[in-house]
Amino acid sequence: MGRITHSRPITRIRLGQSVSRRPDALAVEEPLEIRVSGTPLAVTMRTPGHDVELAIGFLLSEGLIRHGDDVVSAIHCGGPGTGGEQNTYNVLDVATAPHVPAPSPSAERNFYTTSSCGVCGKASIDAVRTVSHFGVADPELRIPPELIASLPETLREHQAVFEKTGGLHAAGLFDAATGELLVLREDVGRHNAVDKVLGWAAAHGRLPLRGTVLQVSGRASFELVQKAVMAGVPVLSAVSAPSSLAVELAQETGLTLLGFVRGITLNVYAHPQRVLPPRLEDAAG
Amino acid sequence: MGRITHSRPITRIRLGQSVSRRPDALAVEEPLEIRVSGTPLAVTMRTPGHDVELAIGFLLSEGLIRHGDDVVSAIHCGGPGTGGEQNTYNVLDVATAPHVPAPSPSAERNFYTTSSCGVCGKASIDAVRTVSHFGVADPELRIPPELIASLPETLREHQAVFEKTGGLHAAGLFDAATGELLVLREDVGRHNAVDKVLGWAAAHGRLPLRGTVLQVSGRASFELVQKAVMAGVPVLSAVSAPSSLAVELAQETGLTLLGFVRGITLNVYAHPQRVLPPRLEDAAG
Repeated sequence: MGRITHSRPITRIRLGQSVSRRPDALAVEEPLEIRVSGTPLAVTMRTPGHDVELAIGFLLSEGLIRHGDDVVSAIHCGGPGTGGEQNTYNVLDVATAPHVPAPSPSAERNFYTTSSCGVCGKASIDAVRTVSHFGVADPELRIPPELIASLPETLREHQAVFEKTGGLHAAGLFDAATGELLVLREDVGRHNAVDKVLGWAAAHGRLPLRGTVLQVSGRASFELVQKAVMAGVPVLSAVSAPSSLAVELAQETGLTLLGFVRGITLNVYAHPQRVLPPRLEDAAG
Repeated sequence: MGRITHSRPITRIRLGQSVSRRPDALAVEEPLEIRVSGTPLAVTMRTPGHDVELAIGFLLSEGLIRHGDDVVSAIHCGGPGTGGEQNTYNVLDVATAPHVPAPSPSAERNFYTTSSCGVCGKASIDAVRTVSHFGVADPELRIPPELIASLPETLREHQAVFEKTGGLHAAGLFDAATGELLVLREDVGRHNAVDKVLGWAAAHGRLPLRGTVLQVSGRASFELVQKAVMAGVPVLSAVSAPSSLAVELAQETGLTLLGFVRGITLNVYAHPQRVLPPRLEDAAG
């Protein structure tokens, strides 16, 4: 796992006090080319590790597979023309099952379009709906806000690499009934961290992800909401702000979206019915 | 400018205390399709406003244009099949000058590759070098660290929308000699905020951007370093952590890269020669 952080000498300046040369740990960022049955589909800048989960989560997010069973194998292959160089582990080839349609010839364009969402907000929201294979999950789910409020702290406690580098986003999947952390993934790209979590879920036969909360360390964009919806996640909780389109998509798809989940406050931006009223402190005394 | 923030009723929970329904300001996120002479090139999720700068900065970052003069016009056009709907202002068509080569038929793929960086770090770093039209800018530039340390504060003071929504990244271009803020742009996407700044510079005939510092509100990724290099920026300063590949690219291209520029401390990750020693406080007394 040495490729997750990279140590490098840096110059540290403290104004009025000192200049020092010292080693610093950096979060590793490297490209991963995802191929489907030998054909390049996409390149993403990611932190190495859990690459198979990343690829499976990405294919799920993009609507190219529905379950972990749709993937037969996923193998790192050598980069092109690297000659005597070592395998860089930056190319991953995913073989899908015979019943899975191959990406269309315009898959790159399709991928890019769906990833970044299309020509206008309305059209892209419709597009997401058509490719989501799971309905609105867990209409009856109810979660105490005290449980949700505890998740960012748990996420941070388990973020080993962030502590060292300050440079990684995290996504954690939690059991909505117990608050148990099911899986946590870190990455320089927040989309990748979520894809790794969803890929883990697909590989473990847990789709659709009913009865869970997906907690992310940063903001909630349209794309993160889209990924949650594609995996059937009922509740997405972010430490920072959501965007307008993230809220709009959550509202239309039935996802409960929380933001600014910090300390004792939580903002619910869409479908607040899944969040129970807080236990009120006794006003007497 | 009403489309930069969007007000929406949300549910705000304070544990043990209250639940309230109240309006909240969201940072607007909408897709922008960038076309070159009628042909769709890319879609980016952005905060509306300064779309022309965004498109010009994007084309510059991708090596498709070299100067503002390479662009003849940039016009918002209606979305396809919108019928009686209003223009959504989410499609922008850029007409380039006759001497500018049209994007190749594989431009989508090329764009995607360079944007996300290619098959392996080494190859992509080489690719950036070949498309950068400006040499290493300002080898003689020297900047007091006290000036750089003041930039994040100035950036924050001018971030009008962030104050309201907490949801926008910012990029600011500063004069390296005086610390004067030349331009500031905000966006839900940090790459877009930088593209808008670079597009502003291109439109004002300021390329290459010698004698400037580009200050960003978040982390420094490979892609942000690449954009700075494409515009000839000599110094990139980030409030948060850089990635390993960001540092590697900065080192190889001659860019001075700073991170964790907070309060009285600054980390210099590449080419520290442009940063003067700090003025030391009198040790006596």
